[in-house]
Amino acid sequence: MFLKNCWYVAAWDHELIDGKLLARTLLEEAVLLYKSETGRVVALQDRCCHRGVPLHLGRREGDCVRCMYHGLKFDPSGKCIQIPGQELIPPKLGVRSYPVVEKDHLVWIWMGDPSKADPAEIIDFPYLREPRWKGIPDYMHYKANWLLIVDNLSDFAHLAFVHTKTLGGSEEYAYKTKPVAIERLPRGFRVERWHMDAPPPPFHAKVLPAAEKARNVDRRNIGHMHIPGIFFLESMFSPAGSGSEQGRREGTREYRNCQFMTPETRRTTHFFWTYLNDWEGEDPNISRSLHQSLIEGFLEDKHLIEAQQVVIDTDPTFELQAIASDAALSHFRMTFAKLVAQEEAERGIVQAAAGKPVKPHEIGLKA
Amino acid sequence: MFLKNCWYVAAWDHELIDGKLLARTLLEEAVLLYKSETGRVVALQDRCCHRGVPLHLGRREGDCVRCMYHGLKFDPSGKCIQIPGQELIPPKLGVRSYPVVEKDHLVWIWMGDPSKADPAEIIDFPYLREPRWKGIPDYMHYKANWLLIVDNLSDFAHLAFVHTKTLGGSEEYAYKTKPVAIERLPRGFRVERWHMDAPPPPFHAKVLPAAEKARNVDRRNIGHMHIPGIFFLESMFSPAGSGSEQGRREGTREYRNCQFMTPETRRTTHFFWTYLNDWEGEDPNISRSLHQSLIEGFLEDKHLIEAQQVVIDTDPTFELQAIASDAALSHFRMTFAKLVAQEEAERGIVQAAAGKPVKPHEIGLKA
Amino acid sequence: MFLKNCWYVAAWDHELIDGKLLARTLLEEAVLLYKSETGRVVALQDRCCHRGVPLHLGRREGDCVRCMYHGLKFDPSGKCIQIPGQELIPPKLGVRSYPVVEKDHLVWIWMGDPSKADPAEIIDFPYLREPRWKGIPDYMHYKANWLLIVDNLSDFAHLAFVHTKTLGGSEEYAYKTKPVAIERLPRGFRVERWHMDAPPPPFHAKVLPAAEKARNVDRRNIGHMHIPGIFFLESMFSPAGSGSEQGRREGTREYRNCQFMTPETRRTTHFFWTYLNDWEGEDPNISRSLHQSLIEGFLEDKHLIEAQQVVIDTDPTFELQAIASDAALSHFRMTFAKLVAQEEAERGIVQAAAGKPVKPHEIGLKA
Repeated sequence: MFLKNCWYVAAWDHELIDGKLLARTLLEEAVLLYKSETGRVVALQDRCCHRGVPLHLGRREGDCVRCMYHGLKFDPSGKCIQIPGQELIPPKLGVRSYPVVEKDHLVWIWMGDPSKADPAEIIDFPYLREPRWKGIPDYMHYKANWLLIVDNLSDFAHLAFVHTKTLGGSEEYAYKTKPVAIERLPRGFRVERWHMDAPPPPFHAKVLPAAEKARNVDRRNIGHMHIPGIFFLESMFSPAGSGSEQGRREGTREYRNCQFMTPETRRTTHFFWTYLNDWEGEDPNISRSLHQSLIEGFLEDKHLIEAQQVVIDTDPTFELQAIASDAALSHFRMTFAKLVAQEEAERGIVQAAAGKPVKPHEIGLKA
Repeated sequence: MFLKNCWYVAAWDHELIDGKLLARTLLEEAVLLYKSETGRVVALQDRCCHRGVPLHLGRREGDCVRCMYHGLKFDPSGKCIQIPGQELIPPKLGVRSYPVVEKDHLVWIWMGDPSKADPAEIIDFPYLREPRWKGIPDYMHYKANWLLIVDNLSDFAHLAFVHTKTLGGSEEYAYKTKPVAIERLPRGFRVERWHMDAPPPPFHAKVLPAAEKARNVDRRNIGHMHIPGIFFLESMFSPAGSGSEQGRREGTREYRNCQFMTPETRRTTHFFWTYLNDWEGEDPNISRSLHQSLIEGFLEDKHLIEAQQVVIDTDPTFELQAIASDAALSHFRMTFAKLVAQEEAERGIVQAAAGKPVKPHEIGLKA
Repeated sequence: MFLKNCWYVAAWDHELIDGKLLARTLLEEAVLLYKSETGRVVALQDRCCHRGVPLHLGRREGDCVRCMYHGLKFDPSGKCIQIPGQELIPPKLGVRSYPVVEKDHLVWIWMGDPSKADPAEIIDFPYLREPRWKGIPDYMHYKANWLLIVDNLSDFAHLAFVHTKTLGGSEEYAYKTKPVAIERLPRGFRVERWHMDAPPPPFHAKVLPAAEKARNVDRRNIGHMHIPGIFFLESMFSPAGSGSEQGRREGTREYRNCQFMTPETRRTTHFFWTYLNDWEGEDPNISRSLHQSLIEGFLEDKHLIEAQQVVIDTDPTFELQAIASDAALSHFRMTFAKLVAQEEAERGIVQAAAGKPVKPHEIGLKA
């Protein structure tokens, strides 16, 4: 049910400072993450091959990690290189290691066939490394399947109802905004939506200078969703009528947002995110306010999404039903299902690659 | 395992005041209950047909309810009548609605085939609407199958041991009372038991005038149990030797008690009840004292009944064994099993209607 | 998966004082233990045969126990001897009773075929009854399969890493101690290990007179492990170089330790233990200090062992892998698996007695 051969975000780099042994379940596999003494990030199966004790209960020694039950020591490749009191070490003894790449403060991991792991495939979000874009990287844990979060981000329709007083602004948005322009991509989609001449939404108004708070804005949102669950959002707020649709940027305030959904299990998700702005100057409270507003908004989503998961758990035969605004998410789920089917077929799992790729309810699609 | 085509108590009417959206699981189905603006009680499947968000997280609008994820609006029949941002609404789009009837402060629901729902079949307990009968309607949640509570109420034998110091009075009752007269009914039973010339039980003595507390009473209990789990009890306490067995009522104090067991799941139960008296006059403390005494007694039962459930969960092969005092409950469980079998056969579920109606352990009967 | 036909420790005798009805799950069976009025320990199935209420919620009456739901009374053999309000008692009505033996402050129980229960088979640990050996009997509950605790006790290799600062003393022990002498027994094993000329380990140093704390010792550990999970340990600390290997005992301080692992379920274990010394004289603080040190050490084990259980639960296909120091535990698990297979074959459970005795992962063996 998981797509294995792709890059997932496993952690923010700040989660690994000071040699911390970080235990994190990813795609239902227990993984140990740590930064070795030489500064390289290591990802190993979090389970000693001897008696199964989690390695994160062990001790980092240089670039290696030692299980603190009977002292077996493993190098960054997962190979066992010491068994106290035993001279001969079986050459194949060891634990699985995973390809990892540290880039722009994120630790990416490849959970599938290591021979296929190509760091060039890691999707770039340059704002994460450009110093003028400021934000506070954060993490949230969801008791819900990651695709339910992908769904949530795939439409702007829910902004009006879920986030009326935080990220949205008014229920009228649901009826008055322009249609969403959707571009279907081989591994995701691009959506764009304009909302003209309306008051700034609460999260934005909060950080504006007093004079700007009362002025209407033209709001442009461009979202990119990528397999397996990576979301980039570019938001632009221009003075209403300033010609932003013609490409004029004067007086425009912009945000960049990235969100990474990594399955912990089929029912829980790691959610990494940051919300960036390029105009706070020397005032870090802009970032802090935006960070708090986003958390407030995310909690509104979380409340509903986790309730969805309970509903699905209670009745696994329930099939989600699409409405018009679900075009993007339907494309995404379909694309995702095909990739999973293809990958499982390659792994020799007998599944008719065409007719019945994966059980639809497993990824929440109506059959 | 549940009987679908019959009326169940879903709520007390006071649970729906002020437009509250009440989420309640009934027979393992998630139901939303609310009173519409026009005062009609509505029962809908508590799950938006779109993405599965529970409707009780939504908002009542007049007689309708709106899902607050993407704004779909449903009328009291469950039909979707608005999708914000979308003109055309598929005519079949909607959620299931359930027949409901509000009567005598109770909300009754029909979980089966709506075409068979006849409000005339709702069992009448007139004391609930007669103003001279006073009591405090209440609710208790059980972590146990509802039939275990039905069992408990089906015999008076447990009064002596479980409720010695509350509702019973003495362990001697187990040995000295007259035999129970049992009348087997097509959909339940009637039991009657006399216990002559004994001190009033603690719950009754507590509310008596001082002069009466010390006088022995003749106690008559008449219980009615009905499918699916409805219990009515008439209790009469007459001065000992006053001729109550010959129908004389002088000096008799009476109570009326009703208890409604509605399955939440196969392992949990909604328990609605009230204990009525017609002699408190202007003293509401009589009701309050009786209410407290009954809670005390019910908690004594709950402790044992929930322990039974744990035992059954631990070993689902365990078969309850009947003793002589179980005649009434055995009849009830047999009757109930036949009705379920018949209903499931009608629904086309392949089950030999005769030999093996339902798996006995599913309803706790010895095969 | 459990071995039934053998003696298990069910309780310390002090757990049954004052007529207490002790509920304890053993090998996934709910058992009631109590000491009858005449002083005999009784073990009954903890479930009334009538409606399944646990008997430990009942009342001891003399040598019997009464269920406090409907008053059925059971004698020490489990036979029902009274049903209030019913004259005739079906002769076979009753609950299962288990053979029990009280010996040296331990209550032993036989969970299998009663006809095979021979008290002579109870393994003797004479130090438990000899007054000069002092200690504090105690109990710990493990959220782990008992065999994982047996494993833990089967090697001395983990002392160095897990108990460095408590029972072990130094990580060097893992590399410098003499090899373990292993004797394979038909129903267990004997291991012996010498560690010469090293500082006393922390738990021992703590209770030594000041002058002795700094002197090196020769340490001898002899462990006996018996089916189903009984561990005896003899520890001797002699002044370094005093000739202890040649049998000289002058200045030697000795300990006796017994540990009894009784499965509660396949995932949880009752752990009974005491740590005895024969040299505290009139100073009970020696026992108290040793008791605290052992608890400290056991908690170090518990932390790892319960983590192992989580790992195994998460991935039941995981197969523990043996290293050289696992010779004793491998022998034990193999022996145990054979006995279980043999017993299950005798019980007529269709399992090829040879090829595939029990599923290896059920007892944690590599196939």
